Amino acid sequence: MNNWLINGEAGDAIKIDDRAVQYGDGLFETIAIRCAEPRFWPLHFERLQNGCARLSLGAPDEAQLKHELHMALQISGADPEFAVAKIIITAGQGPRGYRRPRDCTNTRMVRVFASRPRPRSDYENGVAVTRCQTRLAQQPQLAGIKTLNRLEQVLGQNELHDTEFAEGLMLDTDDRLVCGTMSNVFLVKKNKVYTPAITRCGVSGVMRRKIIEIMEARHIEYEVIDIGRDTVSSADELFLSNSQFGLLPVRQYEETRFAAGEQTLRIMRALVEQGVTESSA
Amino acid sequence: MNNWLINGEAGDAIKIDDRAVQYGDGLFETIAIRCAEPRFWPLHFERLQNGCARLSLGAPDEAQLKHELHMALQISGADPEFAVAKIIITAGQGPRGYRRPRDCTNTRMVRVFASRPRPRSDYENGVAVTRCQTRLAQQPQLAGIKTLNRLEQVLGQNELHDTEFAEGLMLDTDDRLVCGTMSNVFLVKKNKVYTPAITRCGVSGVMRRKIIEIMEARHIEYEVIDIGRDTVSSADELFLSNSQFGLLPVRQYEETRFAAGEQTLRIMRALVEQGVTESSA
Repeated sequence: MNNWLINGEAGDAIKIDDRAVQYGDGLFETIAIRCAEPRFWPLHFERLQNGCARLSLGAPDEAQLKHELHMALQISGADPEFAVAKIIITAGQGPRGYRRPRDCTNTRMVRVFASRPRPRSDYENGVAVTRCQTRLAQQPQLAGIKTLNRLEQVLGQNELHDTEFAEGLMLDTDDRLVCGTMSNVFLVKKNKVYTPAITRCGVSGVMRRKIIEIMEARHIEYEVIDIGRDTVSSADELFLSNSQFGLLPVRQYEETRFAAGEQTLRIMRALVEQGVTESSA
Repeated sequence: MNNWLINGEAGDAIKIDDRAVQYGDGLFETIAIRCAEPRFWPLHFERLQNGCARLSLGAPDEAQLKHELHMALQISGADPEFAVAKIIITAGQGPRGYRRPRDCTNTRMVRVFASRPRPRSDYENGVAVTRCQTRLAQQPQLAGIKTLNRLEQVLGQNELHDTEFAEGLMLDTDDRLVCGTMSNVFLVKKNKVYTPAITRCGVSGVMRRKIIEIMEARHIEYEVIDIGRDTVSSADELFLSNSQFGLLPVRQYEETRFAAGEQTLRIMRALVEQGVTESSA
């Protein structure tokens, strides 16, 4: 099962002295593979670059990563029409201690996994979501990027065991709605779209960015803004985004039921035109 | 260099699919080895147990871990009189995705490293410390335990590159003093000792607990309390603790100089009696 490429070599293990193992000192990207290509690659690479700069890690080499994505796809045996790639960039090996050595060299890991689209009914009828008890701590220095420190998301997802909820929405420690454990969230009220600001915590999702681009281009009124927990239940429409499933309407959140309304459907159709074909209701 | 024991077997690598690599889903302990034994083992094991419970990880087996510590010491070639052990417990391997599989089994890693005491002058004259720009996010669910999500400490320590500071003190996002990047902090004012509460962030250090035990036993007046950033400069004495160096007096923090005063010396002497012999000024 040597399906990972580690610095370009097939393998399935890394050194325990790697700073990813010791401290979660690194970043990752999860990228949809469609038609044998990484979808929205420029946005994923930009976030990875931005994350490396924020953590003072060496800059990743774009051509090398793209080459390795194609190699990883070949060795994976996954369907090139519908798969998912994961890239991990770490601060590399080092001696014991939080401080990075001066001469550390990134470790680069790439793998492609088989994947399946969600059931059509999820897009047609929407999914049910809940609210996680686990909160997101506010850390502006790490907000937006996808670091390997993901315990809050793990604890949030673990809350969903034995439930039928497709996602858990997460609040920050000041009761603001931020995102789902693995998605961004949008709500619609009187035809205007709102999505939480990702300035204190949360991940700035590639699909979220794509949706914002679409709203800009199509003059859909929207606002990136702090959203209190109680605002959600007064929304007319609610939907989630992530790079794998595209856009998913929410049909129920706690006591509140939503219709997949006009704005949600409009953005779904626009996404389909941009290649997010799984998002068609 | 197969100095790690991985689930009891010598090696130096773990599977990339281990959740430590993917999400930092696990815990660690760093333990002083003195006279071929892990010092204050019951306190380290208790914190590890507590951390496993908080993260819903399987409980570690105490006898097995102690046995592996002794094995790791033997294969390390380190001086059994003065070395340092690291234990890492992870949520084990799993498929892609934040949610832990139902049947996950902890991965257990143990290694002993050679170590050296700090220079005597650090204990006699105190060390100079600075304040990190990196803040600690407030996350009560993870406060106190030693998870593998340690990017804040990494960024804090990286700030100390090219400085002569022995440690960087860290504030939380509300300007409270919490701890150093790798130590706990105590200040003394009018002979009373104060140490920050570890309820929102920070690690509840074993040496900190030992010092609190000593203050209880010797009727030294103390308080565990929130401490604002400006309180530090008005302190009479300031000192740091961690499991490796014991207690280190601080001689300078930002513009403020401190003497290694009466209470600091009293606690240092008490620690020496408890086996923390490196802490003698």
